[in-house]
Amino acid sequence: MIEECSGYYWFRELSSGGVDLAHLCRSILFSGRTQYQRVDIVDSPLHGKVLFLDKVLQSAEKDEFIYHEVLVHPALFSAAKPRSVLIIGGGEGATLREVLRHPGVERVVMVEIDGQLIHIAQQFLPEWHQGAFEDPRLELVFADGRRYLETTDQRFDVIILDLSDPFQDSPAALLYTTEFYEIVRSRLRPGGACAVQAESISPQQCAVHARIYNTLAASFPVVKTCPYMLHSFHRPDAHLLASLDAGWSAERIARRAEASSLPLRYLSPAVMRRLFAVPPYLEEAYALHRRPLTDADHHIAIDEIL
Amino acid sequence: MIEECSGYYWFRELSSGGVDLAHLCRSILFSGRTQYQRVDIVDSPLHGKVLFLDKVLQSAEKDEFIYHEVLVHPALFSAAKPRSVLIIGGGEGATLREVLRHPGVERVVMVEIDGQLIHIAQQFLPEWHQGAFEDPRLELVFADGRRYLETTDQRFDVIILDLSDPFQDSPAALLYTTEFYEIVRSRLRPGGACAVQAESISPQQCAVHARIYNTLAASFPVVKTCPYMLHSFHRPDAHLLASLDAGWSAERIARRAEASSLPLRYLSPAVMRRLFAVPPYLEEAYALHRRPLTDADHHIAIDEIL
Amino acid sequence: MIEECSGYYWFRELSSGGVDLAHLCRSILFSGRTQYQRVDIVDSPLHGKVLFLDKVLQSAEKDEFIYHEVLVHPALFSAAKPRSVLIIGGGEGATLREVLRHPGVERVVMVEIDGQLIHIAQQFLPEWHQGAFEDPRLELVFADGRRYLETTDQRFDVIILDLSDPFQDSPAALLYTTEFYEIVRSRLRPGGACAVQAESISPQQCAVHARIYNTLAASFPVVKTCPYMLHSFHRPDAHLLASLDAGWSAERIARRAEASSLPLRYLSPAVMRRLFAVPPYLEEAYALHRRPLTDADHHIAIDEIL
Amino acid sequence: MIEECSGYYWFRELSSGGVDLAHLCRSILFSGRTQYQRVDIVDSPLHGKVLFLDKVLQSAEKDEFIYHEVLVHPALFSAAKPRSVLIIGGGEGATLREVLRHPGVERVVMVEIDGQLIHIAQQFLPEWHQGAFEDPRLELVFADGRRYLETTDQRFDVIILDLSDPFQDSPAALLYTTEFYEIVRSRLRPGGACAVQAESISPQQCAVHARIYNTLAASFPVVKTCPYMLHSFHRPDAHLLASLDAGWSAERIARRAEASSLPLRYLSPAVMRRLFAVPPYLEEAYALHRRPLTDADHHIAIDEIL
Repeated sequence: MIEECSGYYWFRELSSGGVDLAHLCRSILFSGRTQYQRVDIVDSPLHGKVLFLDKVLQSAEKDEFIYHEVLVHPALFSAAKPRSVLIIGGGEGATLREVLRHPGVERVVMVEIDGQLIHIAQQFLPEWHQGAFEDPRLELVFADGRRYLETTDQRFDVIILDLSDPFQDSPAALLYTTEFYEIVRSRLRPGGACAVQAESISPQQCAVHARIYNTLAASFPVVKTCPYMLHSFHRPDAHLLASLDAGWSAERIARRAEASSLPLRYLSPAVMRRLFAVPPYLEEAYALHRRPLTDADHHIAIDEIL
Repeated sequence: MIEECSGYYWFRELSSGGVDLAHLCRSILFSGRTQYQRVDIVDSPLHGKVLFLDKVLQSAEKDEFIYHEVLVHPALFSAAKPRSVLIIGGGEGATLREVLRHPGVERVVMVEIDGQLIHIAQQFLPEWHQGAFEDPRLELVFADGRRYLETTDQRFDVIILDLSDPFQDSPAALLYTTEFYEIVRSRLRPGGACAVQAESISPQQCAVHARIYNTLAASFPVVKTCPYMLHSFHRPDAHLLASLDAGWSAERIARRAEASSLPLRYLSPAVMRRLFAVPPYLEEAYALHRRPLTDADHHIAIDEIL
Repeated sequence: MIEECSGYYWFRELSSGGVDLAHLCRSILFSGRTQYQRVDIVDSPLHGKVLFLDKVLQSAEKDEFIYHEVLVHPALFSAAKPRSVLIIGGGEGATLREVLRHPGVERVVMVEIDGQLIHIAQQFLPEWHQGAFEDPRLELVFADGRRYLETTDQRFDVIILDLSDPFQDSPAALLYTTEFYEIVRSRLRPGGACAVQAESISPQQCAVHARIYNTLAASFPVVKTCPYMLHSFHRPDAHLLASLDAGWSAERIARRAEASSLPLRYLSPAVMRRLFAVPPYLEEAYALHRRPLTDADHHIAIDEIL
Repeated sequence: MIEECSGYYWFRELSSGGVDLAHLCRSILFSGRTQYQRVDIVDSPLHGKVLFLDKVLQSAEKDEFIYHEVLVHPALFSAAKPRSVLIIGGGEGATLREVLRHPGVERVVMVEIDGQLIHIAQQFLPEWHQGAFEDPRLELVFADGRRYLETTDQRFDVIILDLSDPFQDSPAALLYTTEFYEIVRSRLRPGGACAVQAESISPQQCAVHARIYNTLAASFPVVKTCPYMLHSFHRPDAHLLASLDAGWSAERIARRAEASSLPLRYLSPAVMRRLFAVPPYLEEAYALHRRPLTDADHHIAIDEIL
């Protein structure tokens, strides 16, 4: 008589534009506020362990590997022999984990603004970092990523921008602008590459992605779209890959992936070879939403992203 | 003081396994029950017009083109010169619309069990059918698809199974079994192809898809996975393409697509060429979930699909 | 397998302070926007027909009689022989219906700011008005209630303020202030009475009610609390009765009710006799929240009411 | 840009018949399963600390005093000089707390089937029990209440049945039947009284209450309705008071309350004097729903109660 499959606690995601989405929680593993954001980690029957920042799902145990493999490996295979890598953001440690799987990498600088988040991740998200924070190749810096890049004179083979959404009030917003990408470019070694988390590419919601694409394309000779879809993100997304190597080709990086023999769960060489095809509707969006994001013009309303 | 972006009516989707999802409705265009199912058509700010059958989202105005292009065109380009096509299901008329874009197609038989649904679609879903129900090449049959195929002696170049989910009690459940696929094969002309709506492929939820894959693979020499991602389905899905042409290749059908010059919005020749790559985690699922669906063993619990 | 008691459309009420409440709709009878407010009328399995204004439930078919009997009859029995009654608000027509049941009433002026709402009520809410709008004793005025009272020189035996919630931006907010109650008092005949819809009296949420009480008590010699409980309002509420008759007693109006033989469904003479007892926790609130609402100071936050 | 008043965890109450109700949780204080039921204790911004059993709200910090005062004191004042009291259920300890406020009470036996629930209450619900479990007059028995009464030969001045809802599968269901009330009567001393939690009395949902009323009335010469409304229960409810004293009157118990000088927050002598008036619609329900609950016929569907 009483409903069988009964739910108790529901975590309602911040959303807008017409969908209301709540996740059943088998248990709440962590819930608290750092200096920068609200952090919730729950156990979901569907997605496994899930991390939310300010009510937005960031990463889920069961499909985070797709997100992180597509963010990291195309960039690392784009640089011929990447030795030094800069990660901005990525507090869960999974981007770092994937970078460290490349044996040629000698040094990784990870700049995360929210030191408490890393502390929480170290304790509650071992499935993500898998010990990566202990790797001697890591230099962990607690700082604003843009300020770090503005003031360092180091150069990197690969820079990975694993950032949260560019809401106007977010510290991340100024890491999606023309001015920032110019700084990124100036801190890359010749032939270097940059990977960017770049939001939704659905026909419903792809204008912000298109603007990030065009903003990057003004600074880099090669920009490639890396579509992926996570059940936990409940929409199609894409990362963007920007390269300083004018001779970049999907075939070349797929061959490097083959040679590396890295056993990836999503991005096999065959999948990587075919990753970058852009459907016509998205090409149209690239042609339509050309206005770059700049330090002076980067207002994005919530219903353009969520 | 009062919340700005206020919602009024919410359509709560049938779901299970831990996610609760509701769609804001700007208006309700139709809501009623046919002999076979509950039908709701609403206007969503995010997805445009949306069709639900028995509380499950079937199709949304803004991204249905991706679903239907991926279902129809790989199958039609797989058959060398498809002249006759059978569609089972697909009451909205968009599968029919895409089939009819192939000028070589001379005859389409569409078998839909729910005549009232077609009537509703004709009236409320013009964005889907776009007049396709008026095409003189169409023969519309109101019947159970399996019974139709069992009793006809016609043969087709392409058979498209645009069915709802194989819940145990659904009339669709017996159109996903070994016994049925054997009948389908026997009604295809040499070199013919069959396309099947084949559920979720997320790491979270891909066992049913894998069983459909293996069931088809027992009857057809070539089975190919066609992944796609709809914002309105909020998870990655795949169709399956089964071909009787042992020499089938992605390259060949991409060339036929190029030659056809059909202006598709999603499935450009470049995207079609890359469509069929299967990520390793899904290969593993294919190896793991081998038990075929049969007339005697096709029980699928709701939380395996939704 | 699929859940039995499945809901389709849900109307989510505007609420705050920690409760989220949605009503299943069997059907939507009306949904639209007048010049003043959004109006929704739905059919609920629990409450019958339900009227919402701006997402706030105003009245439900199955228990509106309790609200309206408690609002109207204590006031009419408080005036010795009420002949003229003024209603401000009450667009559904049920307050009018109850007033007209008193055969001694010769004239009712009903002032409603939203003429379109009355039009909608006439068409969709016959269970409420039951033809009352056709009564020859009625004068219907479409105007702001405060402006009407400020400019008329008529006097009434009873004035009934059947208003929506005093949110700051609502046109109703200025009909809960000291200045307004002074006008009301000046338009009452000697011994006259005034009834006021006066919000929640739960221990959780009674500060606004207490301020309305104290505001009225500054203008009237007698103010009495009329608690009532509607399932559809999902909390305990009270109307307030203000009388110019310093000799007012519950016993006297209960006797008048007995003499009238009006067959009420909720407010029998026995219930009326016991209506006005105030529990100590509410007396404490009256002592605590003494700040009157005034034209200059009537800001009420949404979470003080909803 | 991001919504200000953001909610994180929501506890969705078990409900039926058309309302969906979720409570925002500031924090989850306890969540677990005893041998008998699921127990959740959360901190709600609206209701304070809240206890749920099997997803049904049982008691909230901010208004539990109304429930417990109305359950306990009319019964204790009905017995002339109550010395021995039996409580069945009431695991939170607040019924016990109220009983113990009567200085003449020498002995209280509390029979609760779920010993783990009492353990949880002792630790997490001090606002309810306020140390009552330490009182030397208490005998705590962990047993099924019906079996206890069937096998004891003790007699009590007052028996309080503070039970959860009589769902068919609940252990409480057999404590609402004719057979059980006969046992209760036989264990009361002459002039004794019994108090029963007796569900909703709204016009929407009062049939079960009416059946409990009529079942009690078959065993007791006096049965009185004690209406109350809790914001946290979001509907009007009533307890029932059954007395063996044929000379029972509201006036007499109100005088005893006055004499006692117990400082109650809800049930002042004035409120008690007026507590028992039954509105005509409920009288009608008593006349209509006469079928008693018996051991053989006590099936109650969930949508008759929730």
